[in-house]
Amino acid sequence: MPAADPVTTFVEPRCTPVPRAETKRRLATFQETLRVAGIDAALVVQNADLYYLAGTVQQSQLLVPADGEPVLFTRKTVARAREESSLPVETLPSLRRLGELVVERCGEVPAVVGLELDVLPVAQFRHYESQLPGARFVDVGPALVRQRAVKSPWEVARVAAAAAMADTVFARIPDLLREGLTEAAFAGLVEAEARALGHQGVIRMRAFNGEMFYGQLLSGASGAVASFLDTPLAGTGLSPAVAQGVSFKTIGRGEPVVFDFVPVLDGYTADFTRIFTLGELPEGLMQAYACARRAQAAVAACARPGVACRVVYEAALEVARGDGLEAHFMGYGPSQVRFVGHGVGLELDELPVLSPNDLLLEQGMVFALEPKFVFPGLGAIGIENTWTVGADGIDRLTRAPEEVVVL
Amino acid sequence: MPAADPVTTFVEPRCTPVPRAETKRRLATFQETLRVAGIDAALVVQNADLYYLAGTVQQSQLLVPADGEPVLFTRKTVARAREESSLPVETLPSLRRLGELVVERCGEVPAVVGLELDVLPVAQFRHYESQLPGARFVDVGPALVRQRAVKSPWEVARVAAAAAMADTVFARIPDLLREGLTEAAFAGLVEAEARALGHQGVIRMRAFNGEMFYGQLLSGASGAVASFLDTPLAGTGLSPAVAQGVSFKTIGRGEPVVFDFVPVLDGYTADFTRIFTLGELPEGLMQAYACARRAQAAVAACARPGVACRVVYEAALEVARGDGLEAHFMGYGPSQVRFVGHGVGLELDELPVLSPNDLLLEQGMVFALEPKFVFPGLGAIGIENTWTVGADGIDRLTRAPEEVVVL
Repeated sequence: MPAADPVTTFVEPRCTPVPRAETKRRLATFQETLRVAGIDAALVVQNADLYYLAGTVQQSQLLVPADGEPVLFTRKTVARAREESSLPVETLPSLRRLGELVVERCGEVPAVVGLELDVLPVAQFRHYESQLPGARFVDVGPALVRQRAVKSPWEVARVAAAAAMADTVFARIPDLLREGLTEAAFAGLVEAEARALGHQGVIRMRAFNGEMFYGQLLSGASGAVASFLDTPLAGTGLSPAVAQGVSFKTIGRGEPVVFDFVPVLDGYTADFTRIFTLGELPEGLMQAYACARRAQAAVAACARPGVACRVVYEAALEVARGDGLEAHFMGYGPSQVRFVGHGVGLELDELPVLSPNDLLLEQGMVFALEPKFVFPGLGAIGIENTWTVGADGIDRLTRAPEEVVVL
Repeated sequence: MPAADPVTTFVEPRCTPVPRAETKRRLATFQETLRVAGIDAALVVQNADLYYLAGTVQQSQLLVPADGEPVLFTRKTVARAREESSLPVETLPSLRRLGELVVERCGEVPAVVGLELDVLPVAQFRHYESQLPGARFVDVGPALVRQRAVKSPWEVARVAAAAAMADTVFARIPDLLREGLTEAAFAGLVEAEARALGHQGVIRMRAFNGEMFYGQLLSGASGAVASFLDTPLAGTGLSPAVAQGVSFKTIGRGEPVVFDFVPVLDGYTADFTRIFTLGELPEGLMQAYACARRAQAAVAACARPGVACRVVYEAALEVARGDGLEAHFMGYGPSQVRFVGHGVGLELDELPVLSPNDLLLEQGMVFALEPKFVFPGLGAIGIENTWTVGADGIDRLTRAPEEVVVL
């Protein structure tokens, strides 16, 4: 074993690293997937997947053989990988040495190698091809995404801790929000609260070009501006370069302030939306808000293990339709999206997607449910909580009061 | 032309969208590259490249034929793409229609198609293969990166505006920094200032798994903790899930507070580091800081068009070596990095990299120069400014005073 790096990390007193029992069980499940699919070994490299399986994001190639002990080949830093991960760590002096290290471990070039082809850039893939000549490469990204959709109790507790951060920040808003603030300045105040509580900043998304910064704090007509992401709300953004989120628009009276906030703690994200307003909102918006809460209740009444995402989506849509609000549900016009929620965990865009698809809910899944309505020129209104699927139904992890907060 | 989306954006009063003359010139240069390389057409999709060539990040496939007019096939949102881009925009109803739209424009499947293979995921690439059967695909990512390294005067002005944001935030620090704040809470206060000034939040990096959140605000021993990114400083981070940046460590007296801050405005980033301290710093750290400033001066004395990056790197290294500080230069032990600066622009990790490589500096290049020293257990110290290469030398864009700020 080479000498440890002389630069070691602190023991961070408040973080909750991934316990050995968690990575052990996750790896065993993943290895079972490999065996069933006839994949001899996988190399896992993307940050969220790496953290999930190894408990570290140190620059590594995680070799998971279908049978036998996984090993982390780490380029930078070896010392931190050893501190953070319970897996055996070997130094990877250069990516050009990867092939020989894999062969050393596996005895030969594995015939079928799994890679995260859903996120791995082509140029990097070609490097793997040259390092492991003769291997056939298959995509294990979707299998990892599917596995990660079902959380352990430990993981649900992590999302619950992130959800509690949203509740805490929510309670601070009445002291922060005031007329005439720009959305950007208001966001800064909110984000400062979150940072002090330990928000990690970085929000991971799996989708190519996926970007998110703390969520969407949008006032009035901003809330109705769609953009490139497949989200119900987006906002103008500060320029076309970022094209979403807050702008320099000032927050006025009598308009909905959408507090759509993504807390992230110890790698795990929740998702949360409440509505604030300075002065009263137009009656039509308040009716739409009541409809969003009933749509949420309709989902809560039917969602449980074994129910298809399609059923859940349609339960929410049916409530919107019953109120004559279908055209405003989850966006407006060509920017409408066809989902009412999405899984959350180590990434913001996880499974299950609550859309017309046939995936069945399972105990341990965690999702954000976000019935929202968009009214061009007026803004957006709606609610979002993070829920976990229990044995008989779903349980709410974000617990803040749900009424529109009139300041 | 299909009807415009009914949901339109505001005119954002304070942002500086990409002028038509800019995208026109950039596209002409890129088309010349395509012709020289024998590439019939390119499809550009990654956010930073898309913004560079089309002035928008709306979900699009930018078709750039080697000859003829580029066109933006936009899935979401068409209305914003039309507002933000000066290129012709056509609706892309589905990615499954891309092939036929390309053939319609080009008359046939182009024989050689350029894609950003350095960032494009394999699964997405395979979709292009199925959409354009018979085409040979080549990587145009590196060519775009190379082209983007040389900025127009308009782009230099954008980076200068971002640099000015760093200067402004720097001037606010004496009112924000106090003993006993956690690094995370301090970062929140700093970031709130930046947000109010229009910091876009999202920091783009080209590297796979590249992540950065506002920079690194690290105090004392935190500054000496390395991590997975190829950066001289990283920090513990709030947990192994993010593994860089601020932690819950409290800021104490007599330790260097590294204010490494990445401003981003209208898509363009600068990079900036200054040192603060509550009370005096140990003499050894102050000497290292003086050395960093002399290393910066050595670079400023030799950097000009036609000089290789290698020469610039070695000029800085030579100063460190002369002071006996080579072992602490740009990291310590196995975590040392072999560069003293990096290009900045629409991404944080651009060319030129000021490392032992043979790329020649050119007028219009913009880079962050960051001679830094790392002392395990004590922390890090150094300076970082953003510079542009002029006709005869380099000019500083970040203008804040360079002395260690003792509070």
